[in-house]
Amino acid sequence: MENKGLHEECGVFGIYSMGDIEKIAHNVYYGLYALQHRGQQSCGIAVSDRGVVESYKEMGLVGEVFNDDTLNTLKGQMAIGHVRYSKASESNNENSQPLVLRYSKGRIAISHNGSLTNAEEIRNELSHDGAMFQTQTDAELIAHIIAHQRLLVHSVEEAVINAMKKIEGAYSILVMSPQKLVAARDPLGFRPLMIGKKGESYVFASESTALDAISAEYIRDIEPGEVVVVDKDGLKSYKNNCTGKRGICIFEYIYFARPDSTIDGVGVHDARLKAGEILARRHPADADMVIGVPDSGLDAAIGYAKESGLPYGTGFVRNNYIGRTFIKPKQSERRKSIDIKLHVIEENVSGKKIVMVDDSIVRGSTCANIIRELKEAGAAEVHVRIASPTIHWPCYYGTDIPTREELTANHNTVDELCEIIGADSLGFLANEDLYELMQTEEKTFCDACFTGNYPTEIKE
Amino acid sequence: MENKGLHEECGVFGIYSMGDIEKIAHNVYYGLYALQHRGQQSCGIAVSDRGVVESYKEMGLVGEVFNDDTLNTLKGQMAIGHVRYSKASESNNENSQPLVLRYSKGRIAISHNGSLTNAEEIRNELSHDGAMFQTQTDAELIAHIIAHQRLLVHSVEEAVINAMKKIEGAYSILVMSPQKLVAARDPLGFRPLMIGKKGESYVFASESTALDAISAEYIRDIEPGEVVVVDKDGLKSYKNNCTGKRGICIFEYIYFARPDSTIDGVGVHDARLKAGEILARRHPADADMVIGVPDSGLDAAIGYAKESGLPYGTGFVRNNYIGRTFIKPKQSERRKSIDIKLHVIEENVSGKKIVMVDDSIVRGSTCANIIRELKEAGAAEVHVRIASPTIHWPCYYGTDIPTREELTANHNTVDELCEIIGADSLGFLANEDLYELMQTEEKTFCDACFTGNYPTEIKE
Amino acid sequence: MENKGLHEECGVFGIYSMGDIEKIAHNVYYGLYALQHRGQQSCGIAVSDRGVVESYKEMGLVGEVFNDDTLNTLKGQMAIGHVRYSKASESNNENSQPLVLRYSKGRIAISHNGSLTNAEEIRNELSHDGAMFQTQTDAELIAHIIAHQRLLVHSVEEAVINAMKKIEGAYSILVMSPQKLVAARDPLGFRPLMIGKKGESYVFASESTALDAISAEYIRDIEPGEVVVVDKDGLKSYKNNCTGKRGICIFEYIYFARPDSTIDGVGVHDARLKAGEILARRHPADADMVIGVPDSGLDAAIGYAKESGLPYGTGFVRNNYIGRTFIKPKQSERRKSIDIKLHVIEENVSGKKIVMVDDSIVRGSTCANIIRELKEAGAAEVHVRIASPTIHWPCYYGTDIPTREELTANHNTVDELCEIIGADSLGFLANEDLYELMQTEEKTFCDACFTGNYPTEIKE
Amino acid sequence: MENKGLHEECGVFGIYSMGDIEKIAHNVYYGLYALQHRGQQSCGIAVSDRGVVESYKEMGLVGEVFNDDTLNTLKGQMAIGHVRYSKASESNNENSQPLVLRYSKGRIAISHNGSLTNAEEIRNELSHDGAMFQTQTDAELIAHIIAHQRLLVHSVEEAVINAMKKIEGAYSILVMSPQKLVAARDPLGFRPLMIGKKGESYVFASESTALDAISAEYIRDIEPGEVVVVDKDGLKSYKNNCTGKRGICIFEYIYFARPDSTIDGVGVHDARLKAGEILARRHPADADMVIGVPDSGLDAAIGYAKESGLPYGTGFVRNNYIGRTFIKPKQSERRKSIDIKLHVIEENVSGKKIVMVDDSIVRGSTCANIIRELKEAGAAEVHVRIASPTIHWPCYYGTDIPTREELTANHNTVDELCEIIGADSLGFLANEDLYELMQTEEKTFCDACFTGNYPTEIKE
Repeated sequence: MENKGLHEECGVFGIYSMGDIEKIAHNVYYGLYALQHRGQQSCGIAVSDRGVVESYKEMGLVGEVFNDDTLNTLKGQMAIGHVRYSKASESNNENSQPLVLRYSKGRIAISHNGSLTNAEEIRNELSHDGAMFQTQTDAELIAHIIAHQRLLVHSVEEAVINAMKKIEGAYSILVMSPQKLVAARDPLGFRPLMIGKKGESYVFASESTALDAISAEYIRDIEPGEVVVVDKDGLKSYKNNCTGKRGICIFEYIYFARPDSTIDGVGVHDARLKAGEILARRHPADADMVIGVPDSGLDAAIGYAKESGLPYGTGFVRNNYIGRTFIKPKQSERRKSIDIKLHVIEENVSGKKIVMVDDSIVRGSTCANIIRELKEAGAAEVHVRIASPTIHWPCYYGTDIPTREELTANHNTVDELCEIIGADSLGFLANEDLYELMQTEEKTFCDACFTGNYPTEIKE
Repeated sequence: MENKGLHEECGVFGIYSMGDIEKIAHNVYYGLYALQHRGQQSCGIAVSDRGVVESYKEMGLVGEVFNDDTLNTLKGQMAIGHVRYSKASESNNENSQPLVLRYSKGRIAISHNGSLTNAEEIRNELSHDGAMFQTQTDAELIAHIIAHQRLLVHSVEEAVINAMKKIEGAYSILVMSPQKLVAARDPLGFRPLMIGKKGESYVFASESTALDAISAEYIRDIEPGEVVVVDKDGLKSYKNNCTGKRGICIFEYIYFARPDSTIDGVGVHDARLKAGEILARRHPADADMVIGVPDSGLDAAIGYAKESGLPYGTGFVRNNYIGRTFIKPKQSERRKSIDIKLHVIEENVSGKKIVMVDDSIVRGSTCANIIRELKEAGAAEVHVRIASPTIHWPCYYGTDIPTREELTANHNTVDELCEIIGADSLGFLANEDLYELMQTEEKTFCDACFTGNYPTEIKE
Repeated sequence: MENKGLHEECGVFGIYSMGDIEKIAHNVYYGLYALQHRGQQSCGIAVSDRGVVESYKEMGLVGEVFNDDTLNTLKGQMAIGHVRYSKASESNNENSQPLVLRYSKGRIAISHNGSLTNAEEIRNELSHDGAMFQTQTDAELIAHIIAHQRLLVHSVEEAVINAMKKIEGAYSILVMSPQKLVAARDPLGFRPLMIGKKGESYVFASESTALDAISAEYIRDIEPGEVVVVDKDGLKSYKNNCTGKRGICIFEYIYFARPDSTIDGVGVHDARLKAGEILARRHPADADMVIGVPDSGLDAAIGYAKESGLPYGTGFVRNNYIGRTFIKPKQSERRKSIDIKLHVIEENVSGKKIVMVDDSIVRGSTCANIIRELKEAGAAEVHVRIASPTIHWPCYYGTDIPTREELTANHNTVDELCEIIGADSLGFLANEDLYELMQTEEKTFCDACFTGNYPTEIKE
Repeated sequence: MENKGLHEECGVFGIYSMGDIEKIAHNVYYGLYALQHRGQQSCGIAVSDRGVVESYKEMGLVGEVFNDDTLNTLKGQMAIGHVRYSKASESNNENSQPLVLRYSKGRIAISHNGSLTNAEEIRNELSHDGAMFQTQTDAELIAHIIAHQRLLVHSVEEAVINAMKKIEGAYSILVMSPQKLVAARDPLGFRPLMIGKKGESYVFASESTALDAISAEYIRDIEPGEVVVVDKDGLKSYKNNCTGKRGICIFEYIYFARPDSTIDGVGVHDARLKAGEILARRHPADADMVIGVPDSGLDAAIGYAKESGLPYGTGFVRNNYIGRTFIKPKQSERRKSIDIKLHVIEENVSGKKIVMVDDSIVRGSTCANIIRELKEAGAAEVHVRIASPTIHWPCYYGTDIPTREELTANHNTVDELCEIIGADSLGFLANEDLYELMQTEEKTFCDACFTGNYPTEIKE
């Protein structure tokens, strides 16, 4: 279910045109549209025409920020874009990306998805050396380090490779130098980033669905630690920082990414189906119907239904028109619906024993509300199945998980939690199920929020 | 599937407060939000405070048009609202509703859903008597007739009852006079309209889901031909124009209404499920998976899967962020996706024999595009099942069906059509199946677009 | 001085193109820009292309409401526009003009400047015959009457001529029928209206400066009572309602019109200069400098200076950026400036004996504030000279003068008023001076607000 | 005359509240409104609450950018604001000020008016040391230098004092550190900056009229080279960089500043009056009337009239409603008016011998247009008097004067120029007249654009 405040993602998109892309900014626009689910707070596009960089960024959705006129003014042979989510409420757009900075080697533009674990250290170190910052973004820190490195080496790609030795944590970045477009992914590949091709031109995107949006062909995922650079002579890859390890955030599959995307070879829809199937085997239920909580619980519900043989049904209708400008009702006004955004189909759940599948439980309050509404609509029983394990640890890599204090699983057993949320039974995935979900026998993903096993060093 | 240009609906919502509704305009706002799917072009709210009427209406979605300030200026003890769709592209808001008119008895405000079949006659007759019009709406015609009648009788409800003898076709209306709120439905009840109650106050809405949005209790549907009036003494019903006949538009169930609504005792979700079940029996298919075209084909697909025993799956992801301001790609740019709005989950359909359920076929081109995409994504076979009969006749009651010429079913047999759209097999509901779908043995609905049997006289 | 709440004017502009006007809506746009001082609340343009009328109107200034795109969609061979002021604060644009109405003879569009004295009677009579109104404008009443007449006669011009026998008071109107553009002025010509020519095409405007704005040549003023009609065969004049009497509102010269306009043969700037000269003779002062209150007091101040031989100086700077969106300071915050809009040039008035010329005194409070500020800035003496007589009577012809109760001149002698406002001396024009100001020996103007001699019958 | 492209100014405003200023952002808003004439492209306000800085800045006028809600979110005990003009057309707001930067000592916010002459050098030097820039402003360079200095000294005021040794050219700056508000003016004081007091709180503004706008009392001008710092203990002054020299830009008096402002003890209105008087003595004319070109030529025209004994008159009406959104007419459409912004009062100039006073001549084309219009309106003779000397040299201190090539005075004698612009006679001030205008015998001002005597070193 969306909007549970678990989200702190961004989406990035970039194109280096070999001369065969008309209206490059329009192409980025369509790419960002397909990535809008990764961030709805602000968005931007920067284009570079032989080092002359123009950018436009604002608070709002892609469709609100850009119009045909704005896109037409953004011309160049390469471009990067960004959609941004942040849990902080911001009225100003200082943190919007792409960031464009000038330094002694010209201009550099950057779009970033992820979260650095040594941001504070870097900021202090750079500050100590006299750096000045105009945003609160990690992107600005990364740009500073790349620029510093660029003064010591002979190319922007070397600068990026060296910079990666100094920054720690999660980052998938796109960087435009005057002549080159560089894409890089941190050594564990926490956040997705992939390469596509449209004609002779190269495209980079956080998710494969964004490549499809401009009819670009998916080529391959950038490897964890890999640096890819495109210039007029084509694409080159540098694997200096590749270690062979992998650590894609499991929440990309459970919640963030669009079901039609494939990341690191694993289909998001497929992973969710599997999660449902495993749940059905691990936590069967005597029920009349399986329903999912829109949108991210739906696919797992289908998997549960398929594996259990129970019929799949629709439990909720989602109001697609609720946007940023929606005036929230006061608490006293809200009784019958969880949220005007989600509404129970009373006739379909009334009198039935229901299996309800959702993606995760953080604090438990949203889940409790949904169950209460189902019961008020006449559901005889509500068996809750969660398509992920219990969450116990904070995330330092960009997923917005609250403190250990606020995580209900740190204070209650599953049985206690079942009672608290008012369910008739409650089942989670086990940590070991994630291997099956990811179709792997090796640990190729990060499950630190479930296990506390952080794949990088975390300083307190 | 939405946006096939089959839509010319509106939604209405009204409240008469017995003094226990705070912020009446905010309540209408939430009601209209829940009816937004019935019209996205313009919206408005009129409030009446003992005959002093204030209104605000603009082009745009409910969330774009209203903010807290605007709503706070709209105070009164009764209020009506309207969301409007029109197939004409309009930049001006002259046709936005509610309409507010002044005449010798004071002010009258009106919201209308439907389409009159004798609008031209009425307009000519009124014009001949000197009437002047400022909009192109049927609402204005109805208001004129009610006002004329009001001069001859002793109450606004009598005026409405008499006016109904002069207007023909489809109309569900809400009318505010200085002291009363009147709701009426045409003698066949083509369009829905129902009564709810919140505390001591009365609420009217096109769909039950809008009652839920403000936690109002559903009381009952207004009967075809019934006039209901609320004033400080409570609610009265007048059945002078009731004939016992019924003719709710079948497309309300197939396409227009939200699945969580119940209209005239029949659940929309339930009707769609049934449509899928009937299809499964009438047109079985040897397939691996059943998918629906979002959003209106999904429920029928679930019904098909359930009845056939085939697994239900997700074929498409819908981009919820595509709004009015979306810059459409040029034809040359569009290749891989039907529309950036709908995207195939390639991994889930690849190699499979698919049953694809959609709500209806009008011209056939959208369906053909979707099938092509499924095939390009690797679907082995695509068996199309349509949750309604073949459409042969235009609609005069407000459903935007094109001329007979443009309806593909008038030029092709089902087999020819199957070939044209590139399906491996194609099946529709039969006309007689609609009785089962509607859970009735009598003809309680209008199926003129399928059969040509118009339930009212249509003058050429 | 502006914004003293004395203003209830509008401006009208129209073009009938003989085929030689490109972008007719753009031309109306420039005309309205030049008339913006006559109304800043809402504006609109309607174009007619052989009976097909399109219009666009909104709250706001001409430059806010229209952009190139909007203007480009408004195509036709004739067009009318309107700028509107109203003392009521309105958030909705229902009263914006031009009004476009449909009746049995097709569409009619109307722009109106003035105020009917029998509006209530007409509204009642029309209502009694079943008319319905959607606005509070006199324009709607006039359109109804013209339409009624049109059913009885053979042309729109005859209809206008007959309608003028039913409506009383002040009106300068532009009316578009499917084939013709009609301009008419009430029998006393309270409000200005003039004819211009651009190439072969005819132009109508409230003021000559608007003709200049599109490089149209001034031809002549429409006579009081005259009806002028333009169609493809050219211009015809009908003087059926001409009586030879004249009654142009004297406040058009004193306050409303732009100084570069000439109305009924008298230059506005010239009239104001003369007012100042007469004041200098009638109320000389022993002073060091003459200043005017911007903008409408400046020209009279120049006249006073010239006639008296005293030097002319600048007393105030006006902030041109204060618009509709300005956040007014709370009373407690306002001390040193009359209004942030007007600021005393301290160094220029300090220590001097000042003659300060303003256009009129209604309640006296604004004038008192200005005098106080001049004194605080060090002015040794402030001798106030008012370029109009004392106001004693309300206006029924469109000038927003408050009730007799609120008019300070009804409660105080000039000497008392002088003391109240804190002036060292105070002088007004005498009623008989207006003849000299208007360069006439006959009564060709309306001075009812000064004398109570209303040139038409006023029913209580 | 405005908009001749001679303008590259900004305005700054700041407040340090001793606890007695309510709604600090609203106060800055009024101050900026009064400075709006100094820059209409973008504006912004930054507030600081014990080091926590919030800012809001956008493209547009003060009245467009800020509303009550925005201002209410900006809370703090000190605040600075900025209005900005730039000759470059910019769609993005990256160069809007105040700039807010973070460095090792916390946040620093800066508003700047002026132009550095060693910006390129500084940028290169900072870049060489690894600095990165996100804007094209001098403000960013100054902030970097102050921040660097701050690491070496014990207070922000020392840092500013030291920074001033590194930056050259014109700058009046306001700087907020976490605890202090610092105001500084370059050693020659090219741009104005003054101190005011409201209650116990200190206010800084580019012009005295902005102090008046919030009823603050004018205390004194900051001296050239002076650094003033306010913290909770009050105001301190540092004159380390004062040299006793002065070089206020003479164009502040001729054109930029509002006539009601007093700068460095000289009233702007007074200086303009004097310019007119000197012109009358130096270049008398046999004429009927003296007129000024609005707005900056009006006061000099009054001075000319007074000294010459010729009557002062109004030649033009200015349309105050022309704003950023005005759709410019195509060249072919523009014939009768210079610009729809300025319109000749034909009746007042017709047949007369006119002395027309304007502030300056740069390229001469605007002046030629105005003269042509006066002649077309029937002026018998047009004697042009310019309230400044002939311009021969570019400005490096922030006044937007074009290259020597484009300056007409570098290619033509006054007699030739007179003929080119179509005047009957033409007279300028002499360079030595500026002393009288400034009421000084010493060189206290910069006249480099007239004389080429740059008061600071200019490297080519």
